[in-house]
Amino acid sequence: MRTYRVGVLGATGAVGQKFIRLLSDHPWFTIQAVGASERSAGKTYSEAANWVETSEIPSSIKDMVVRECKPEAMNDVDFVFSGMDAGVAGDIERSFAEAGIPVVTNARNYRREPHVPLLVPEVNPHHIEQIKKQTFHPEGKGFIVTNPNCVCVPLTLSMKPLIDAFGVESVVVTSMQAVSGAGYPGVPSMDIMGNVIPYIGGEEEKIMWEPLKVLGELKGDGTVANATLGIHASAYRVPVMEGHLLSVVVKLKQQGITEDQAQQAYANWKNPLDGLELPSAPKQAVRLMDDPRYPQPRLHVQNEGGMQVTVGRVRKAGLFDFAYTALGHNTIRGAAGGAVLNAELLVKKGMIQPRS
Amino acid sequence: MRTYRVGVLGATGAVGQKFIRLLSDHPWFTIQAVGASERSAGKTYSEAANWVETSEIPSSIKDMVVRECKPEAMNDVDFVFSGMDAGVAGDIERSFAEAGIPVVTNARNYRREPHVPLLVPEVNPHHIEQIKKQTFHPEGKGFIVTNPNCVCVPLTLSMKPLIDAFGVESVVVTSMQAVSGAGYPGVPSMDIMGNVIPYIGGEEEKIMWEPLKVLGELKGDGTVANATLGIHASAYRVPVMEGHLLSVVVKLKQQGITEDQAQQAYANWKNPLDGLELPSAPKQAVRLMDDPRYPQPRLHVQNEGGMQVTVGRVRKAGLFDFAYTALGHNTIRGAAGGAVLNAELLVKKGMIQPRS
Amino acid sequence: MRTYRVGVLGATGAVGQKFIRLLSDHPWFTIQAVGASERSAGKTYSEAANWVETSEIPSSIKDMVVRECKPEAMNDVDFVFSGMDAGVAGDIERSFAEAGIPVVTNARNYRREPHVPLLVPEVNPHHIEQIKKQTFHPEGKGFIVTNPNCVCVPLTLSMKPLIDAFGVESVVVTSMQAVSGAGYPGVPSMDIMGNVIPYIGGEEEKIMWEPLKVLGELKGDGTVANATLGIHASAYRVPVMEGHLLSVVVKLKQQGITEDQAQQAYANWKNPLDGLELPSAPKQAVRLMDDPRYPQPRLHVQNEGGMQVTVGRVRKAGLFDFAYTALGHNTIRGAAGGAVLNAELLVKKGMIQPRS
Amino acid sequence: MRTYRVGVLGATGAVGQKFIRLLSDHPWFTIQAVGASERSAGKTYSEAANWVETSEIPSSIKDMVVRECKPEAMNDVDFVFSGMDAGVAGDIERSFAEAGIPVVTNARNYRREPHVPLLVPEVNPHHIEQIKKQTFHPEGKGFIVTNPNCVCVPLTLSMKPLIDAFGVESVVVTSMQAVSGAGYPGVPSMDIMGNVIPYIGGEEEKIMWEPLKVLGELKGDGTVANATLGIHASAYRVPVMEGHLLSVVVKLKQQGITEDQAQQAYANWKNPLDGLELPSAPKQAVRLMDDPRYPQPRLHVQNEGGMQVTVGRVRKAGLFDFAYTALGHNTIRGAAGGAVLNAELLVKKGMIQPRS
Repeated sequence: MRTYRVGVLGATGAVGQKFIRLLSDHPWFTIQAVGASERSAGKTYSEAANWVETSEIPSSIKDMVVRECKPEAMNDVDFVFSGMDAGVAGDIERSFAEAGIPVVTNARNYRREPHVPLLVPEVNPHHIEQIKKQTFHPEGKGFIVTNPNCVCVPLTLSMKPLIDAFGVESVVVTSMQAVSGAGYPGVPSMDIMGNVIPYIGGEEEKIMWEPLKVLGELKGDGTVANATLGIHASAYRVPVMEGHLLSVVVKLKQQGITEDQAQQAYANWKNPLDGLELPSAPKQAVRLMDDPRYPQPRLHVQNEGGMQVTVGRVRKAGLFDFAYTALGHNTIRGAAGGAVLNAELLVKKGMIQPRS
Repeated sequence: MRTYRVGVLGATGAVGQKFIRLLSDHPWFTIQAVGASERSAGKTYSEAANWVETSEIPSSIKDMVVRECKPEAMNDVDFVFSGMDAGVAGDIERSFAEAGIPVVTNARNYRREPHVPLLVPEVNPHHIEQIKKQTFHPEGKGFIVTNPNCVCVPLTLSMKPLIDAFGVESVVVTSMQAVSGAGYPGVPSMDIMGNVIPYIGGEEEKIMWEPLKVLGELKGDGTVANATLGIHASAYRVPVMEGHLLSVVVKLKQQGITEDQAQQAYANWKNPLDGLELPSAPKQAVRLMDDPRYPQPRLHVQNEGGMQVTVGRVRKAGLFDFAYTALGHNTIRGAAGGAVLNAELLVKKGMIQPRS
Repeated sequence: MRTYRVGVLGATGAVGQKFIRLLSDHPWFTIQAVGASERSAGKTYSEAANWVETSEIPSSIKDMVVRECKPEAMNDVDFVFSGMDAGVAGDIERSFAEAGIPVVTNARNYRREPHVPLLVPEVNPHHIEQIKKQTFHPEGKGFIVTNPNCVCVPLTLSMKPLIDAFGVESVVVTSMQAVSGAGYPGVPSMDIMGNVIPYIGGEEEKIMWEPLKVLGELKGDGTVANATLGIHASAYRVPVMEGHLLSVVVKLKQQGITEDQAQQAYANWKNPLDGLELPSAPKQAVRLMDDPRYPQPRLHVQNEGGMQVTVGRVRKAGLFDFAYTALGHNTIRGAAGGAVLNAELLVKKGMIQPRS
Repeated sequence: MRTYRVGVLGATGAVGQKFIRLLSDHPWFTIQAVGASERSAGKTYSEAANWVETSEIPSSIKDMVVRECKPEAMNDVDFVFSGMDAGVAGDIERSFAEAGIPVVTNARNYRREPHVPLLVPEVNPHHIEQIKKQTFHPEGKGFIVTNPNCVCVPLTLSMKPLIDAFGVESVVVTSMQAVSGAGYPGVPSMDIMGNVIPYIGGEEEKIMWEPLKVLGELKGDGTVANATLGIHASAYRVPVMEGHLLSVVVKLKQQGITEDQAQQAYANWKNPLDGLELPSAPKQAVRLMDDPRYPQPRLHVQNEGGMQVTVGRVRKAGLFDFAYTALGHNTIRGAAGGAVLNAELLVKKGMIQPRS
């Protein structure tokens, strides 16, 4: 397998650092360029980044000179990952797509664009077909693919076995979200130590909309008809470093399902990525744990390199049908790692090509 | 107003310590006796108790000699508060009631007894009438009154304005519960630091049953017909010291209520304790806060001495109707403080009398 | 006793909020004016301040209009408290002093000025005489009094009984400091949750210099000859909300002191404030606790309204003589509360007079 | 290289679990037997252990049947690791040594025995010669080797470069210790969340004695003459999961050393394990970090698999000479990992042989 030269936009931020770490020993992708703000451009990566990862800056990146986030400054890459803030991502990502450089982004700016896939590879891999209808670049060489919000990923993944087996009519979710989701410096310690904050600005709107597109139906014109699914979300911030834990209640479409059947759906579920051998794909994308005390952020967030979604306590919930808890790594599975997996799928499917 | 001599059963435990603190400067009640296990009996209180409160042991209690939890050892009290563990509370509380000594307890043992009130004074004060049908003591001098679980209190109190205004058909609650709810030593630090545990043994059952009795209808025979209310509860432990925070979704009986009307219900609500001037009654039992980031355990759990339930973010929740967040102090409002308020109501209504 | 009208400079910041809270029901002082940056001036206090205290904004202050921090905007006060950041405090405090308005400040700018007292009332009350040599105002009506850094206060107070009894030759201190010491937003949660940071910029220098002045000798010319005391300090940040805990090792001047004698020094110590009846003075300024597990920030930081310094484990430390642990409330005793106590002493001693 | 069959005593406890994890993919050692209390014996390991590690129970161990901790139940091993509590370790470890089975233990029981090495392989590897004078077994086949307390390891390792270069006369250390050091369930969350505890029973005595033996001189009779070094230790518990952080002040024997020379000593230090290629030996056993904010438990405790001791802020400390901060992983480097490294050294030096 040949390797691809990649650029990382927003490389010095919290998500960018995760990209650096995940890509530093990736079998398919080699970091060719790191891009950040004008202020950082020209410095070495280790000067420019306030590194917050627990492992050290990969030695191959440490002394790499940070470039500006402009297509002309990154002409030597096959595609770029973007971990930029939404405040600047819109224009820059568009400029790369227009310059014929594919953009695999974690930013939210294009998630609602009709022809931009909002991709969770195990849930809606066929949505990559949307790319073909994008018009950023005259020959279609540049395009944008997004991954959803850090809660949407474990929410859709944990529901998928139930959806495939019985259909899901509605869902109520309370998320208990880690501080790393707010980036760095993010949440002040005085706000969250020994505390819970019942509000995360803009978050609930994303949790209540994005699953509709992810679970929606791809139409012939390359757009997606949103799923008809009742969703209510309440987002809470908790004093946890990594890992969003979800308290989920679902109403199934099919009536009379037993607890045993619901649990069995997880064992029986067919992962569409099986057999593709994508390097970042977890062996088991959704895992139902037995112990009623599981999953827990501290114990399970790193499962399969942070790419597995763990589920627990699938149980009857009276007239609301079923309840369960789900855990996903917010900055890996729900951000940088999800984007890397998206890129792997695109490469496997031939949507990303070497740019000479 | 005359004062009442009270005994505290289970006085050295976590709930017992809260009783000691709350009663140490109570205008109506004077601690006459502290009772604990045989192992502690005979020691001074300061020797026997591993004091975990942030204020110091009240000087009047420090050197009080701990007694055994037997009616004959506490003949000089007008009634007792019980903060005992459920493992021993059943027999001991019964023995006091049979000896003609009223028991106001936080233990769960008699909560489901048909003639034992499960009392939240602002919600179901009329349930104290159940006492008259109790048969522990031939002349009815001894009886048992319970308060519900630490989540049931803020849940029923925060729903009551909506119930009174529009009726509530069903409710889904996810509780984020403080470690103090597990007593001392309780939750190991290795389990909960930087973590969330999605399971608290036996907790959800209580949250799903107790509100049905609290909100139930008092019948002529002194029993309560449980309310017909769909409840689902998911209980999580979070690294918070004091204060259970609830994420609540309710479906109202009345259709078409607006967000403004739902919020207004809190302002309009009539507290049945108003005018009774019970010393521990909060001026405002349920308070709707404006700031979307509120309530928070660290900032608001001590409101009105820990006796106020704070509510926030009452908002539309699509087809599930309304969502909100509620906070209650688990060891004060949801335990010792609730029991003290129960006793105050009983005294005010003449149900507790001096025992000569 | 008449009351004094006070202004609070930097009223919206973390220290300013503590001033507001401490002064809101003060028997001698009435808040007449709150001052903050130009950006806040003109707004009501509740609009301008991001309130982080656990009690609510005092109702008398809530709607007070914030003024600019200029003497001409605060002509109606008898003196001002300053909780401003060091970045702006220098010029503004000087302008008040020059305008004849006494300044009692928590900022560090003037701590090293030869004629400005660095005051811990129980340690060096006679240093207030320095004021008389200040030249900010032609008639001496305006002057500046500072309190030391939040570690210096518990360090000097906890050493004072030993100094008075035996003399102290040198001290090694490791401080474990609460996040509130860094103000708000201050320390990012990602940096400190479940972590310790072995460095606080600029802190150790203050801890190693300020005690020399506080413990120094007042000379006839109104300056202070620094004490000759060997000090080494290492400052650590720990995930605690309020309360700096110190690990102290001291070498006494007097040889052969026993553990019992060292402990006795705390019981025998004569507090120079005794009898002055200053409202904020703790009954017991330095308290030696018996339990070897004490003091602890969570349990004891609020002792005597946060104004008491607690000490524990005074014990032999081999050739280094003695070791102990000490705790002080960093934002009350070590900041706003210390400044209020300074002002009370100044009023009592007639150094602050009504202005018209 | 041949592999050795090992038994793990106390395999279900916190230290035992670390042994299991560290040994599960060890190149030289294969877990042949897991031993625990009578209560656990006969169960599978996954039934018997309340697993608290963040990775899962190794599949090869999960279904292994737990044995009793008796030599006759473990006849098929070449040697044993012991992670037993001190309460039971004494007799059991002796029985294994007497039966001719070498014991490499983390328990404290034999640390002060004259002929038992208290081993930190990079500091006093030659102390393994003590074994030859042990008399547990007539032919010397069984013996006991201990590793010191979890603070002693980073303390002696971080001082060693300074000792080798300049000599150290005295040291004052304040340790900020992680909760995992107290085992499981260990420290109650109510005691430590948002708090610091200035006392750990029995800890300071170990920190003040064990380095004297580790740094002592091996004598011809196989005993060790303790080093003459003044030590004072103050042990604090902080809300950190893993990693003891030390605030250290040292007085060097050699006078007039500059800050630069002191720092250089770390770069120049010669690790006696270099060239031995022990699998668990960190490439760099003691690492001086540049950033003044480093080392931190959260960021650096896992460096080199938790086996590296990191040092920071080596700086002048006035008349006390030098100060620095040091970090060691308490349950790996300071416990199970240290013991594994001890065993590797013993194998390399031919002190442990296959037992047929």
